[in-house]
Amino acid sequence: MEALKGACIIGQSGGPTSVINASAYGAIRAALDSDVITGVYGAENGIKGVLEDRLIDMAQEDREELDLLMYTPSSALGSCRYKLKDPDVDDTDYKRILEIFKKYNVRYFFYNGGNDSMDTCNKISKYCLKNGYECRVMGIPKTIDNDLAVTDHCPGFASAAKYIATSVMEVYRDARVYDTGMVTVIEIMGRNAGWLTASSALAAVKGNGPDLIYLPEVDFDVDAFVAKVKDLYETKHKVIVCVSEGIHDKDGKYIAEYGSDLASQKDSFGHAQMGGVASYLANVVKEATGAKVRGIELSLLQRCAAHCASQTDIDESFMSGKMAVEYATEGMTDKMVGLRRTYDENGNYKCEPELVDLSDVANAEKKVPVDWLNETKDGMNEKFTEYCLPLIQGETKMVKEDGLPRFANLKKVRVH
Amino acid sequence: MEALKGACIIGQSGGPTSVINASAYGAIRAALDSDVITGVYGAENGIKGVLEDRLIDMAQEDREELDLLMYTPSSALGSCRYKLKDPDVDDTDYKRILEIFKKYNVRYFFYNGGNDSMDTCNKISKYCLKNGYECRVMGIPKTIDNDLAVTDHCPGFASAAKYIATSVMEVYRDARVYDTGMVTVIEIMGRNAGWLTASSALAAVKGNGPDLIYLPEVDFDVDAFVAKVKDLYETKHKVIVCVSEGIHDKDGKYIAEYGSDLASQKDSFGHAQMGGVASYLANVVKEATGAKVRGIELSLLQRCAAHCASQTDIDESFMSGKMAVEYATEGMTDKMVGLRRTYDENGNYKCEPELVDLSDVANAEKKVPVDWLNETKDGMNEKFTEYCLPLIQGETKMVKEDGLPRFANLKKVRVH
Repeated sequence: MEALKGACIIGQSGGPTSVINASAYGAIRAALDSDVITGVYGAENGIKGVLEDRLIDMAQEDREELDLLMYTPSSALGSCRYKLKDPDVDDTDYKRILEIFKKYNVRYFFYNGGNDSMDTCNKISKYCLKNGYECRVMGIPKTIDNDLAVTDHCPGFASAAKYIATSVMEVYRDARVYDTGMVTVIEIMGRNAGWLTASSALAAVKGNGPDLIYLPEVDFDVDAFVAKVKDLYETKHKVIVCVSEGIHDKDGKYIAEYGSDLASQKDSFGHAQMGGVASYLANVVKEATGAKVRGIELSLLQRCAAHCASQTDIDESFMSGKMAVEYATEGMTDKMVGLRRTYDENGNYKCEPELVDLSDVANAEKKVPVDWLNETKDGMNEKFTEYCLPLIQGETKMVKEDGLPRFANLKKVRVH
Repeated sequence: MEALKGACIIGQSGGPTSVINASAYGAIRAALDSDVITGVYGAENGIKGVLEDRLIDMAQEDREELDLLMYTPSSALGSCRYKLKDPDVDDTDYKRILEIFKKYNVRYFFYNGGNDSMDTCNKISKYCLKNGYECRVMGIPKTIDNDLAVTDHCPGFASAAKYIATSVMEVYRDARVYDTGMVTVIEIMGRNAGWLTASSALAAVKGNGPDLIYLPEVDFDVDAFVAKVKDLYETKHKVIVCVSEGIHDKDGKYIAEYGSDLASQKDSFGHAQMGGVASYLANVVKEATGAKVRGIELSLLQRCAAHCASQTDIDESFMSGKMAVEYATEGMTDKMVGLRRTYDENGNYKCEPELVDLSDVANAEKKVPVDWLNETKDGMNEKFTEYCLPLIQGETKMVKEDGLPRFANLKKVRVH
């Protein structure tokens, strides 16, 4: 097969992570080093940058700044939450994308994101195919939520998990300094999938784990929760609870909605805006027990705390971006570079790239298996720990200057 | 002078920090290694442990677990917020303390805490003196708030400052991923002194600093704040604001009280319970500008994030504990081991111990000098950066196992 020569576009989409730039850099580096890729363009703010002809010439960037992308959190190219319409209903965006692809002879499109982004990839690929324009499309996974189907895990998850487990261990110690009772409720991201909240269980590996863990995979009952906390409080005096922002009752109503008027706010994908579960539950517990309570929301910190990233995650993120380019230049298209878990001869964790059909990932959602929870469904069992612990190994090699992170500063020279 | 032989008690008091155990260990290590100290006892929960005869024999602990105290956050011996009464009004507690001192032949008392704790030291020392019991009393400073008088800075502050500056840099990056506007309000600890909030300015050293910083040293005007944010939002679209939990209006009313009913809750020192400023201000900004807003409370994380501690702070904390024991065994009493800033021949920051009178520290409070703020009093100038930056240098040598912190686990064998 003759090599397909042409430019490539690399875009980032959806919520950022600590390591999404490592993925992007894997692709950028491989593309810059490739013989067949004639131009390496970063799309500002994902697909919006393509639509608006805002492309950055990555070849103009200094090598050492690009190298710093490995340890720079959040989307350095900018991200978006723009959902393409069904092309059969309105193909305006697709026409524009094709126009831009033709303008710059773009023959490779790499998109770095979650399941919404894989859907975007899928639609663009199908539209190009239908219109006889050869363009190889590759998805590069990214999500702290770890909810992409087929792949063993997702780049970005493990770094957030490491930060969460570390922070829970530290809060566990902090909550024990006084000889008075205290209930701490920690709110962790995860709308529908509880992977991040589950990762708080890793704190127990070192004996500093939460007493209760509630995932959105299990219906939440406020009364049963209060009874359990009350019981634990009376016997242990110190209670630490980790809850997903997305826990809901048996009717599907978010617990966050109980105490807030946030329910009416929807983001551009129609998801309800979350938040406030910890303070709501802390107040409920306070009223029921009279205990001193504290609600802590890990908030944005959990998705951008690059200073506590997993080097395993960073390396795998880079690899998935790099392999996307290598597979595409070899002729592959319409795939996402998934991560497959293998073990070496000594039983040590290894990770290999694995091509996954975009259509298997687009809009699908992988939840935490219910048999990875304990019997009372308010904690994790050893199956989860075995799964998650290998992913958080290795400390970040983040570059520091003056005692602070040295993040990449890109020049962002426009292509046109 | 003949050496004073006898046991020592080491206690920890007040809110914990990431490095208070490094201070305690400096004292414990030096005491265990001392020829004149005959027993090294840790008071469980500070002075409460003395009153209740809950003393831990530190000699029973394994050396390697003790060494891990260097990197273990929060008060490993337990802390308290117990305020001794004026001995002229009620000397019950003092009688009991003297009784315990006599029971174990305690001739050295080391107390690790903030200004309330230095007051405790001062009172105990005076009572012993009045009753003809020789006991050398030394304060070991500790407070993330950095508000102790006389000393250049306080152990615990720099590690919190490093975490805050690092987190603000990461949030700065995170807040810029979309091409839509956003206002982020970050709430930082500090009731009366704005040192911690000021440390967010260090994020600007690497070009990722907040747009506005508000300290409790300056009266806060909600309307002026909203006007400023609105203006910045219209020109920059991204606005990051760092506020102290303790900001108040010109009448002294806490801004946190504006949106909450927390005003009626007081802790045992009569301080109003803080919290909720970020969410209150985020809502005010949202109403006034229609901008997307996010309130982030760094909460307990900022005082227990040992994984992001300053090694300079850790080393100085250990040193202050160690020197307390050395000075006391040399004959000093009624002092706190302060930290003095010096410079070597190349102008590099150095830190030396300096003995400070307890009475100069007890109940005094050092605020941020107003001329370290910018002209508009909503940011810091270079004087603050010059002061603070040397303190956050060096990455923690925290021991990790399985990708997670390995904290000290003490056996806590009781003395009696």
